[in-house]
Amino acid sequence: MSNILRRGRLEAAQDEEILRYTSSMEADRWIFDADIAVDLAHTVMLKEQGIINREDCSKILSGLLKIREEGMEKLDFSYEDIHISLESRLIDMVGEDVGGRMHSGRSRNDEVATCIRLVLREELTGLLEEIHELRQTLLTLAEKHTETLMPGFTHMQHAQPTTLAHHLCAHEAALGRDFDRIQDAYSRVNLCPLGAAAFASTGFNLNRKRTQELLGFDGLLGNSMDAVSTRDFLIECASGFTNLMINLSRMAEELVMWSTSEFNFIELDDMYASTSSIMPQKKNPDTAELMRGKTGVAVGALMSLITICKGLPLSYNRDLQEATPNIWRSVETVRASVRVMEGMIKTMKIHPEVLAAQAVTGFTTATELADTFVRETGIPFRTAHQIVGMLARKMEYPTLKKIDSAAEIVLGESLSSRGLTEKMVKEALNPVSNVKRRKIAGGPAPDEMLNYLSKRQTELELNRQEIATLKDITDSAFENLLATVNEYTGKLEL
Amino acid sequence: MSNILRRGRLEAAQDEEILRYTSSMEADRWIFDADIAVDLAHTVMLKEQGIINREDCSKILSGLLKIREEGMEKLDFSYEDIHISLESRLIDMVGEDVGGRMHSGRSRNDEVATCIRLVLREELTGLLEEIHELRQTLLTLAEKHTETLMPGFTHMQHAQPTTLAHHLCAHEAALGRDFDRIQDAYSRVNLCPLGAAAFASTGFNLNRKRTQELLGFDGLLGNSMDAVSTRDFLIECASGFTNLMINLSRMAEELVMWSTSEFNFIELDDMYASTSSIMPQKKNPDTAELMRGKTGVAVGALMSLITICKGLPLSYNRDLQEATPNIWRSVETVRASVRVMEGMIKTMKIHPEVLAAQAVTGFTTATELADTFVRETGIPFRTAHQIVGMLARKMEYPTLKKIDSAAEIVLGESLSSRGLTEKMVKEALNPVSNVKRRKIAGGPAPDEMLNYLSKRQTELELNRQEIATLKDITDSAFENLLATVNEYTGKLEL
Amino acid sequence: MSNILRRGRLEAAQDEEILRYTSSMEADRWIFDADIAVDLAHTVMLKEQGIINREDCSKILSGLLKIREEGMEKLDFSYEDIHISLESRLIDMVGEDVGGRMHSGRSRNDEVATCIRLVLREELTGLLEEIHELRQTLLTLAEKHTETLMPGFTHMQHAQPTTLAHHLCAHEAALGRDFDRIQDAYSRVNLCPLGAAAFASTGFNLNRKRTQELLGFDGLLGNSMDAVSTRDFLIECASGFTNLMINLSRMAEELVMWSTSEFNFIELDDMYASTSSIMPQKKNPDTAELMRGKTGVAVGALMSLITICKGLPLSYNRDLQEATPNIWRSVETVRASVRVMEGMIKTMKIHPEVLAAQAVTGFTTATELADTFVRETGIPFRTAHQIVGMLARKMEYPTLKKIDSAAEIVLGESLSSRGLTEKMVKEALNPVSNVKRRKIAGGPAPDEMLNYLSKRQTELELNRQEIATLKDITDSAFENLLATVNEYTGKLEL
Amino acid sequence: MSNILRRGRLEAAQDEEILRYTSSMEADRWIFDADIAVDLAHTVMLKEQGIINREDCSKILSGLLKIREEGMEKLDFSYEDIHISLESRLIDMVGEDVGGRMHSGRSRNDEVATCIRLVLREELTGLLEEIHELRQTLLTLAEKHTETLMPGFTHMQHAQPTTLAHHLCAHEAALGRDFDRIQDAYSRVNLCPLGAAAFASTGFNLNRKRTQELLGFDGLLGNSMDAVSTRDFLIECASGFTNLMINLSRMAEELVMWSTSEFNFIELDDMYASTSSIMPQKKNPDTAELMRGKTGVAVGALMSLITICKGLPLSYNRDLQEATPNIWRSVETVRASVRVMEGMIKTMKIHPEVLAAQAVTGFTTATELADTFVRETGIPFRTAHQIVGMLARKMEYPTLKKIDSAAEIVLGESLSSRGLTEKMVKEALNPVSNVKRRKIAGGPAPDEMLNYLSKRQTELELNRQEIATLKDITDSAFENLLATVNEYTGKLEL
Repeated sequence: MSNILRRGRLEAAQDEEILRYTSSMEADRWIFDADIAVDLAHTVMLKEQGIINREDCSKILSGLLKIREEGMEKLDFSYEDIHISLESRLIDMVGEDVGGRMHSGRSRNDEVATCIRLVLREELTGLLEEIHELRQTLLTLAEKHTETLMPGFTHMQHAQPTTLAHHLCAHEAALGRDFDRIQDAYSRVNLCPLGAAAFASTGFNLNRKRTQELLGFDGLLGNSMDAVSTRDFLIECASGFTNLMINLSRMAEELVMWSTSEFNFIELDDMYASTSSIMPQKKNPDTAELMRGKTGVAVGALMSLITICKGLPLSYNRDLQEATPNIWRSVETVRASVRVMEGMIKTMKIHPEVLAAQAVTGFTTATELADTFVRETGIPFRTAHQIVGMLARKMEYPTLKKIDSAAEIVLGESLSSRGLTEKMVKEALNPVSNVKRRKIAGGPAPDEMLNYLSKRQTELELNRQEIATLKDITDSAFENLLATVNEYTGKLEL
Repeated sequence: MSNILRRGRLEAAQDEEILRYTSSMEADRWIFDADIAVDLAHTVMLKEQGIINREDCSKILSGLLKIREEGMEKLDFSYEDIHISLESRLIDMVGEDVGGRMHSGRSRNDEVATCIRLVLREELTGLLEEIHELRQTLLTLAEKHTETLMPGFTHMQHAQPTTLAHHLCAHEAALGRDFDRIQDAYSRVNLCPLGAAAFASTGFNLNRKRTQELLGFDGLLGNSMDAVSTRDFLIECASGFTNLMINLSRMAEELVMWSTSEFNFIELDDMYASTSSIMPQKKNPDTAELMRGKTGVAVGALMSLITICKGLPLSYNRDLQEATPNIWRSVETVRASVRVMEGMIKTMKIHPEVLAAQAVTGFTTATELADTFVRETGIPFRTAHQIVGMLARKMEYPTLKKIDSAAEIVLGESLSSRGLTEKMVKEALNPVSNVKRRKIAGGPAPDEMLNYLSKRQTELELNRQEIATLKDITDSAFENLLATVNEYTGKLEL
Repeated sequence: MSNILRRGRLEAAQDEEILRYTSSMEADRWIFDADIAVDLAHTVMLKEQGIINREDCSKILSGLLKIREEGMEKLDFSYEDIHISLESRLIDMVGEDVGGRMHSGRSRNDEVATCIRLVLREELTGLLEEIHELRQTLLTLAEKHTETLMPGFTHMQHAQPTTLAHHLCAHEAALGRDFDRIQDAYSRVNLCPLGAAAFASTGFNLNRKRTQELLGFDGLLGNSMDAVSTRDFLIECASGFTNLMINLSRMAEELVMWSTSEFNFIELDDMYASTSSIMPQKKNPDTAELMRGKTGVAVGALMSLITICKGLPLSYNRDLQEATPNIWRSVETVRASVRVMEGMIKTMKIHPEVLAAQAVTGFTTATELADTFVRETGIPFRTAHQIVGMLARKMEYPTLKKIDSAAEIVLGESLSSRGLTEKMVKEALNPVSNVKRRKIAGGPAPDEMLNYLSKRQTELELNRQEIATLKDITDSAFENLLATVNEYTGKLEL
Repeated sequence: MSNILRRGRLEAAQDEEILRYTSSMEADRWIFDADIAVDLAHTVMLKEQGIINREDCSKILSGLLKIREEGMEKLDFSYEDIHISLESRLIDMVGEDVGGRMHSGRSRNDEVATCIRLVLREELTGLLEEIHELRQTLLTLAEKHTETLMPGFTHMQHAQPTTLAHHLCAHEAALGRDFDRIQDAYSRVNLCPLGAAAFASTGFNLNRKRTQELLGFDGLLGNSMDAVSTRDFLIECASGFTNLMINLSRMAEELVMWSTSEFNFIELDDMYASTSSIMPQKKNPDTAELMRGKTGVAVGALMSLITICKGLPLSYNRDLQEATPNIWRSVETVRASVRVMEGMIKTMKIHPEVLAAQAVTGFTTATELADTFVRETGIPFRTAHQIVGMLARKMEYPTLKKIDSAAEIVLGESLSSRGLTEKMVKEALNPVSNVKRRKIAGGPAPDEMLNYLSKRQTELELNRQEIATLKDITDSAFENLLATVNEYTGKLEL
């Protein structure tokens, strides 16, 4: 059969090179199921609006179900996209006089936009679940390590002692915001463009609300020209994915660094490590390195999308076909990365004794010492900072005597004369008391951490319920769609 | 006086080249006011918590107010950043024994993060107002053009007739989503990192909730390590700005194209045009071209931010200093672009007669003709598409007779034999009736457009109130902060 | 058989998700042939250096040839990469006691870098040929259109008349620089990392020069640590590809715009156009739109590469595995785009009558008129510019009388009193004489264009010879490699 | 005086916001000197071609020299760009009847393109010198450390021992390629667009060759439309800068990591370090962190340029004005980074004892041990790899006895029975002998390193001469230009 799309208007057939250049069939594998769903919903609505009759409707729906069963591979890949290939297959099955009615009041422009949103919605839901899982794993691990001392870093230098729980919760907090961003994006993805047709809607008396409901969308994309032209939701999602991957890359960087023999804070499970083809003693944290590298996938996809959309006039332009594969590539990589990170964190071996030993290396208690001077002797912070800095430069262990000498130079008097005692100094230099003192909101003191962790668990539970609600809505919609389809085809069960 | 920061620990002074390389003083102009506000709030809280006494508090606050009055230029630019330069100026004024107490329980890490969030919050509010204004201008213009016919484009080809109102509202819809994205970002910007100190919070008994309130933040950034390490809010804002600029670039592209002598749909006001240094007859749509080009600022800033943050271990690293200037550069450009676009749209001259003439060029009513075949003769859409395609290829005006000839070939029978009349054909080919038929939700039919416009105006009013609320909250907080400062310094009015 | 790489060191097998996350097998399809070639060359050299004996050498070489014949699909895809999968297949064939010797003095680090460079070299050569072809097509077309008038644009406004030849040659000139950039990149790609082993070279007495020659490289990557760590050649190529795609996107943009009914300068061949699923009259320049969009592929790949490489310490890190697929994706898209552009240009229908008509629309001859005033009456250019600008504002056809009136206002005297005649004015306003006057180097005057075209053809011929030389060198090397392999395996012919 | 550009054609004056939005005056500070040079050369040529007379020429040249002396600040910043502001200043000085002749046969389009190329050429030359200096510093340091053992890393794990010289030379090799790329870019920057006028050249009888020579360009940009439209040279330079910054970021990452207390390989000079406002003991490698972060500047600038140029039709569009500031921002940052890196490397303190101790940590000699098994006992490499892997897993020091036990399991026989001796094992495990064995081309063996270093020094000297030649050419051209100007203005000395 001749090409149902081109046969009327265009004379030359495309050669293979051009077909490969212009076809979206490969990327359209992502939307095969969604396209069937859109066809089903549109057909049901056409019938309900009296645009096609019951019998034609029944035949089209049955044909669509059969095509779904056969799977994507049975389609003709010489078509330029799945929509027209699928319609052509339907016409083969049920004849043009029936199948040729399905596309009434519709264009591939609104059809493809609807498909993309349907699939992306599912991917976002999956991603939300996976982020949730990773956050849960971080919090659970943190609960075990509220008293595990470790050095906190700034500029990669030991700065002050903290706990592993505190450090892990910093990452969890970032992932919490990533979660929120994906949720916000979801609300702008889950809108229905169907009925916009080419961009000007249609003279057929379609019921846009009905297809929106059948497909489980939260609302309509109102303006029909906007509905087919916009891809800002892809840029927003790709931005959210990138932000998430950046956060994961920061965790991955730490996993790589902490696995060095110099740091030796952790050891990844063998599952996530590899050895060398030439150096048999090596155990490399490859999976973490790859995750750091895969950040490039998300960034590249975002930049591709931006490049494609910039300066495009309304309404639909074919450039937009190039946009979609980027979002699939990105979301697949990002979801796998979240899952793999969860596995790495859960299975890694932590070396608490190394962490504890390093917690005090590098005079990490210097700030507390300066703060103690302020609190106990009443000198200003900036002066205390200078005295401690002087001790630090000499790399000496700060006894009361040495502190007094330094204070004499800076201040003209000793600190012991202002009430500082050896005991206070010792207390300040002790990393455990040091951390315990940091008990204001968000600090690492174990009691405050437990308090903080409990709040986060509550929020996590809330998020869990939000995900469940999202899934309920779309699941019910699809059940209802299939029930309606079965009713119209006379089947009782699918 | 020697450098109050380096004097303790480091021996060598930095030479000028290195200072220039490492200093953030130029970019810190953006946060001068914010830094004073943070210092005021922190000092008030230190006093209330009993960490500094009333007298020292009063002197510090008075000093800070004086520094604010003097302005940024009075600061010493040989310091590496504003925070330390400002503290040094304060110490010059009130002596180290007083001024040296201000930084108690604080680090530049939490200080700068707080300043950035304060300023960015104000910029976002301004941007929301400006987007609102532009949307209002688009809707107002659309209200005047619900019956102004124009060609709708796909692939830059005339596709179907639509109205200027419909086209303008497509852009307004996109800007509505940009508005929402900025609002969502605002909620993640307006959180307070103060009290996180270097990253481990502090042993001083700070009251983080109090400084949060004094500065008008919605909540705390809980985990203190996350509070100083994260810049994901910058990436999120830069992504939002980019998405907005992409949308503006699409409008700008149309303004440029519509100003060509080939299109001649509009003429920009002279304010937004320029002439040539060599070709005196030229009137160039420069401002629209520049806006298209300035999209590059937003994209570049986003990519810089991503590059900087990727793979950074916790907590604070100096790389982050390079992040901030990008957000200022981007937000300034984006805000100006929104304002300038508003002016261009408001002042441009529209050529309705050209738009109307083009609305029918290129057989734009072909879809309606095919749809009419379907509705009036009951043939399937795909078959009707083929018949019209055949007429289109011959570039002939589709009379009933020619339609019948084509139908004979495709269908084996004429369409007039199935009930098609000359009147139906004429009606289908008339662009006015054509547009009127497209009255489903979001379509260009004038009645539906009026309905749609009224809904958008309601939403716009809601958005206006949301902005007002945001501003009320921060304005009240600052009034309260200044009132408290005045109370503590014994002044009644600032 | 157990995993030959992991069996010694690591206990846990990787589960499927992790394998999929870490495996490069899919992307390694690109380097299957290259990997065999590298194995052959390395084995030949090992034998010649006495590191393996003749018999083992012969068996390994025969095994490799057999694997090549079987093809990639016969390899075990549960390995993490092609190198180890291929070695494992070899060991299956010839036993570990023989096959286990092939990897002596080598690491996957230098192996994969060598493979990438081998394949990329071939791709660059192909790309050079394709750019050459496109330039040839542009020049050939230009030769036919040295007298085809068209409007030249600045700011998308008609500016001055020019010729189609002049316009086409602007694109060809840009492509000429793209050609040069790819050639420059080639010289940095075509260097051999083999022998660098993991990064520290090896204690085996390898002959790096010999493998370099056998594989047809121009030289060695000297420092062995650099040899395995650097991917700057990928960034350079991706940058070159991006620059080229930007240039193609500018051509594509013009093809799209010129195909609008408003411009109507050209019509693309049906092969490169599509129609609409709903609007049967449409003929859309889809292929040009897609090319504009595919620019995003090159940009995204570049950005991915940059993100991956930034901040990576030496020497090899697994992140680099993520780099390579980007270059394949980019080069494939870029090469196809060049070929498709060549086809579009060659087959498009040009509308010379429209071009000619538009050449004078919009007072495009204003500059020449001003210049004529300068040359004939001796007034300064800036004053002439003002007089013509005044005429332009009134949108009137500039007769001598009107010119005189304007000159009176600006200058206080008429131009005819300074020698300007009606004939001079007419001459200036005639687009043909106008263009003929522009005969300085690089101008559109037909004689100068012919002169210019002849120079470009000479350069193109030179480039053709350069490509031929590149191909000769690598072809001879491979012939020699196979001859040596045949000699060592005792075969006469492959 | 009214605006000399707008007065003829456009009615409305621009308000301040629009002026700020559209003006390039701030960025034009970069090209002030260049613009004067271009004006001088063009004026000289106009006179030599008889287009202006000697007296007018002399007055214009004198005016230009005076404007140059006054400096940029004396220009009127209410003009949209420097070209028109400068011309206006000239006209103020010498009257329109003289000054109004300077712009004959020229447009701002070719003028600005020429200015950008002139300035960029100088920046590239400076950058080449700075890269050269950094490479020299690296080689000089390497010469001192050919015997300084250190651990070589892959995957951030200790892999094999190498030397500091070997590691430093890896970075130098990368910088050598950056040098070459900048040189290649230089050849495409140093071409002259002057004479292209708006894009169509001009009817005035200009001598393009003459201005090219006066300005020291290597050749013409032939096609006049291409000459004003292309910015691919900016993208190429920005790509080269990015590649260079990526290489610097890799060095910076190592400096940061090597400064950690865990690694402790080096200590940066105090000049390049900072301390903390709260933690007085800290010495942070801030300058290296900032350099890593400043990579974002180069990447952002590149992405801005790409975004701006994508899809722009010919010829000049105002978007291009946004392109230029990116290149200035990038080149300034990149040049400073190279200089600062040179200072950091030259002044950093190396800890050879730590490096040496770490050189053997982590069984880094495993590869050599496996290689020794192959060489001494004739077993295949893959089998040797397995035996050593088994020892590595047990984390035991590999004595001959333990080797034999492992070999029994893997091979069924001991390696001592195949000739392996305790002495051979010891030799293999000794890092010094280990490194000495790696003497093939590019390996770390001290003798090979000295050989390699000598070759690099020779290349560096060659590069030094190439830079000198570039500078000679442009310096002579400018001397000649000034001499000609002096001749025409009757001055003997400038």
